[in-house]
Amino acid sequence: MGAGSFGTVFARIMADAGCDVTVWGRRAPVVEAINERHANPDYLPDMELPATVRATTDPAEALAGAGLVVLAVPAQTLRANLADWRGALPGDAVLVSLMKGIERGTGMRMSQVIAEVTGADARRIAVVTGPNLAAEIAARQPCAAVAGCTDEDTARRVQAACMTPYYRVYTNTDVIGCELGGAVKNVIALCVGATVGLGFGDNTRAMLMTRGLAETARLGAALGADEHTFAGLAGMGDLIASCSSPLSRNRTFGENLGKGMSVDEVVAITKQTAEGVKSSEAVLELARKHDVEMPITEVVASVIHHGMDIKDAVVALMTRSPKPERYGV
Amino acid sequence: MGAGSFGTVFARIMADAGCDVTVWGRRAPVVEAINERHANPDYLPDMELPATVRATTDPAEALAGAGLVVLAVPAQTLRANLADWRGALPGDAVLVSLMKGIERGTGMRMSQVIAEVTGADARRIAVVTGPNLAAEIAARQPCAAVAGCTDEDTARRVQAACMTPYYRVYTNTDVIGCELGGAVKNVIALCVGATVGLGFGDNTRAMLMTRGLAETARLGAALGADEHTFAGLAGMGDLIASCSSPLSRNRTFGENLGKGMSVDEVVAITKQTAEGVKSSEAVLELARKHDVEMPITEVVASVIHHGMDIKDAVVALMTRSPKPERYGV
Repeated sequence: MGAGSFGTVFARIMADAGCDVTVWGRRAPVVEAINERHANPDYLPDMELPATVRATTDPAEALAGAGLVVLAVPAQTLRANLADWRGALPGDAVLVSLMKGIERGTGMRMSQVIAEVTGADARRIAVVTGPNLAAEIAARQPCAAVAGCTDEDTARRVQAACMTPYYRVYTNTDVIGCELGGAVKNVIALCVGATVGLGFGDNTRAMLMTRGLAETARLGAALGADEHTFAGLAGMGDLIASCSSPLSRNRTFGENLGKGMSVDEVVAITKQTAEGVKSSEAVLELARKHDVEMPITEVVASVIHHGMDIKDAVVALMTRSPKPERYGV
Repeated sequence: MGAGSFGTVFARIMADAGCDVTVWGRRAPVVEAINERHANPDYLPDMELPATVRATTDPAEALAGAGLVVLAVPAQTLRANLADWRGALPGDAVLVSLMKGIERGTGMRMSQVIAEVTGADARRIAVVTGPNLAAEIAARQPCAAVAGCTDEDTARRVQAACMTPYYRVYTNTDVIGCELGGAVKNVIALCVGATVGLGFGDNTRAMLMTRGLAETARLGAALGADEHTFAGLAGMGDLIASCSSPLSRNRTFGENLGKGMSVDEVVAITKQTAEGVKSSEAVLELARKHDVEMPITEVVASVIHHGMDIKDAVVALMTRSPKPERYGV
């Protein structure tokens, strides 16, 4: 459900893994292109889809008889979409979220939104996440992901439905950790970008990514996640891919801040707000509610929302009191 | 003890942290440069040392009255050097290893070599490690490290001796994990280099780094390390810094293999054997002895020592049987 770049590339993965796939798309021209030209040129100009992948603008048609319903709409539209589709969802289908994000206002993870709107049992709700840049998967470059579900059997079913020789899938029963990794990484990527803008190198970047993941793990532990998940593909893996790509919006936003631009100036140039800007406050709110120390998220929020100077932010992080490497979990 | 690039930069860190520092160097011209020009131009042309940092070619002079003895010689020379210095080592000094490597022949970590040669108690043996590229620390860019010792008090003492506003130090009591991270990363960096040479992007790299760390953690667990250490600065942090830098010898070696050169051709060009080449077999030996699955190390060793084609290596890794994300620990 969703014919954006990741929804489309995931349809190809599932077809390559032997599934019978129907894509729902909102826009008729995209659906037409998939059916007639076996392509989605707006999002992935170079990728050919197998002829067996069909598309429709009718959600009921796409959902009819589905064993797995893969959800790939923008995170903030999930609730409204699911409400529309509720009547057409097969009662025994597994609902698989590909979305990375926290719902604004409620602070809910995507699987929580799915559970609330559809009433589905947790054993029927799964997520697939990891370092999965769509363009590289479209080129069938080797890639790995995690299929997360509290029920191990369901996780294995999802794994089997999307494992191919270029897309290697591992199972994990920690859904909370899998989803949190993808949500907090944007805040860290923004901070890593800022250090690039300040002219710092690989040591600084490695420090921020590692300590950023440590504070994510502290938050995760407080929310009931398994700390080990953050050392895996949904945590470390996704973070590395996001912080490596110079095309990442979060990284670029931070880089401009690091070069000395104000938040307003950066917003004016990019005409878009980076996801990490929105997430920093939502994550910080969660952290405060659970009494978790998240110093990196804290300075990112202070720089963005409270006018803290970015050089003072560096000093604030570097001169905290001495600590053991692992605490607060 | 050691006036190479990391030994010298660490002397400056300790001086900045308020310690009284004497450097031992093997070569008279280097010692002279430190004493007379407050610089070590052979290794770090742009770094100025505080005038309080003195140097000598006489180990007994350097060691006399030392509370902390920081060891920064090449890993494979440690045993012979320590044997020479044994009589001059103050009996109550803390011995701090900055070296990353496994001793060839014995498979011992540096702290094990120190314990064996000096007879020092584990409470007096510490390591400092992390994503610490010397040139960036020389420029006082923000950087973090781990001070590891089985004794928490000693770890805190080392932390206090080298913590500065640009060098942030965390304590960790897991010495085995701290040392293993630095030893296995070279094998993974070599493999990451190969994927760059093959033309793959950020997904593939993030996958290999994450799964490479997962197999390092499996080996660590079998050797008595704490799995969490690998998600920290000595594991993930050091790995990120090593895999990011295009100057890394291990990465470059792998990149040439990925471009289709044979191992002999790469060795002929580079005139040096990358550390990962030597480590891959030592690590694999440890893994086999402890019955630990290390598929990435395994294919690296097969490509380097047994003529496996690098494209077959990719297929071998991607088509292993489906697995849960965390197993074997």
